[in-house]
Amino acid sequence: MTAVAGKIREVRSAVLEARRRGERVGLVPTLGALHHGHVSLLRAARAENGFVVVSLFVNPTQFGPGEDYESYPRPMEKDLTICRQEGVALVFAPPTEEMYPAGFATTVHVAGLTEKMCGASRPGHFDGVCTVVAKLFGIVRPDAAYFGEKDAQQLAVVRQMVQDLNLAVEIRACPLVRDADGLATSSRNQYLSARERASALVLGRALAQTRERIEAGERDAASVADGVRRLAGDEPGVALEYVAVVDPDTLADLERVERQVLVAVAAKVGSTRLIDNLLVRNLGD
Amino acid sequence: MTAVAGKIREVRSAVLEARRRGERVGLVPTLGALHHGHVSLLRAARAENGFVVVSLFVNPTQFGPGEDYESYPRPMEKDLTICRQEGVALVFAPPTEEMYPAGFATTVHVAGLTEKMCGASRPGHFDGVCTVVAKLFGIVRPDAAYFGEKDAQQLAVVRQMVQDLNLAVEIRACPLVRDADGLATSSRNQYLSARERASALVLGRALAQTRERIEAGERDAASVADGVRRLAGDEPGVALEYVAVVDPDTLADLERVERQVLVAVAAKVGSTRLIDNLLVRNLGD
Repeated sequence: MTAVAGKIREVRSAVLEARRRGERVGLVPTLGALHHGHVSLLRAARAENGFVVVSLFVNPTQFGPGEDYESYPRPMEKDLTICRQEGVALVFAPPTEEMYPAGFATTVHVAGLTEKMCGASRPGHFDGVCTVVAKLFGIVRPDAAYFGEKDAQQLAVVRQMVQDLNLAVEIRACPLVRDADGLATSSRNQYLSARERASALVLGRALAQTRERIEAGERDAASVADGVRRLAGDEPGVALEYVAVVDPDTLADLERVERQVLVAVAAKVGSTRLIDNLLVRNLGD
Repeated sequence: MTAVAGKIREVRSAVLEARRRGERVGLVPTLGALHHGHVSLLRAARAENGFVVVSLFVNPTQFGPGEDYESYPRPMEKDLTICRQEGVALVFAPPTEEMYPAGFATTVHVAGLTEKMCGASRPGHFDGVCTVVAKLFGIVRPDAAYFGEKDAQQLAVVRQMVQDLNLAVEIRACPLVRDADGLATSSRNQYLSARERASALVLGRALAQTRERIEAGERDAASVADGVRRLAGDEPGVALEYVAVVDPDTLADLERVERQVLVAVAAKVGSTRLIDNLLVRNLGD
């Protein structure tokens, strides 16, 4: 039985009941338009928690002017079906005014980490993310929350916020999921035409090749980035926004690839902005 | 028995133990240098909670350049004695680096409410307050937290933050406390010379007179403010910074005094910045 709540007080009372039953509470915050990547988060949450809450909320404050807030997909019935199939206990799908009533005035800002990569082209985006995630943590008070490594910068930023504000929530990262053709799963993939999708596959191919080069011993970060740029930059219809070779926790630019590395890319394919990345941890010398 | 903790994990484990015993947890956040005003907060907390936590932390991020962070009094032994006398269960007195380790990057900002009154002359002050209060709420996870109405703007800002971030903490306001001579209690009063203190008493006198005028039927906010300015502005050695006649919850400027009003003043007396206020609720027509 999946319950659906639109009100904060409904969530609080359902979570309180679950706590009284001694259940561990897991939260999967999403914008809805659930895909295989989200399903992997739901399953990770189900494996560790008796009571899983999924939020479906297209958060306006993390969209910039001219971005796709209005057109972002909101397939509520399909999302609910997926949540039911995956054993989600509670879906929280609030109207905007429940989250941002008149007079709302508070922003949570993480400096540094938010300024580069996606933050450079999406000013305010991570403020919106941090603020809504802090709110969801306040509403649900979960033991653990589940985020995809696809949104690698978001994950690093949320972790920094949780550490800095001493929030008692364990942050769990789940691996990026790809469709059969290699495209990283994203709710925005449905914006792509067939031709655009074919072009977009270059991102996954470039990152797969990068993994091979790193596994074969490439350690020079500039050469790694150049390899991605050369391959993906040649693809017609793909406009690279950035290629970052950074530490996955601090997002600090690397000169040498050692121990762990995040190779992150953003590109416009037609009018659709896509991100993808390669994460390598526990790298030998 | 009052325990003293310097580490966040010590606080968490002590609070967890208290929760296991079924105790309600109250938090009194302070900068230390405890006075009668703080004691009234401790007593309010003790009356409602089995387990009272007091934080003693001179929070650097709420002091501006040129303010008194370095010279702010830190009478730790005296503070601990007061906490013991008042039945405080746990004193949290962290070193600065426990609260702000290297790499700390997060700020909680409340817009609007923080821009006027004390916020106008102390840019960043309320960001520092909100961030440290959010941290203390994250560390202690209290059922209720106790603040003085002396810091009326701080109280309004913290309430807004708690509401906006859906923090599950009840905010309790305790009345402003005055010394026998009428000066509002403040850790900064000890900076005053005897002559300065005598001058500073004009603030309490002006606010007492204002109360009488309002009780006698004065409803014009500009006239209320002028009355305070006339009396306190004439006092040698007292430099008024602002006189605000506002709604105590929204801090919106009032034209008419109705239902409830906060008359707040800030002044420099010598080199010491003092604040004082008059709060009237449930005012008849």
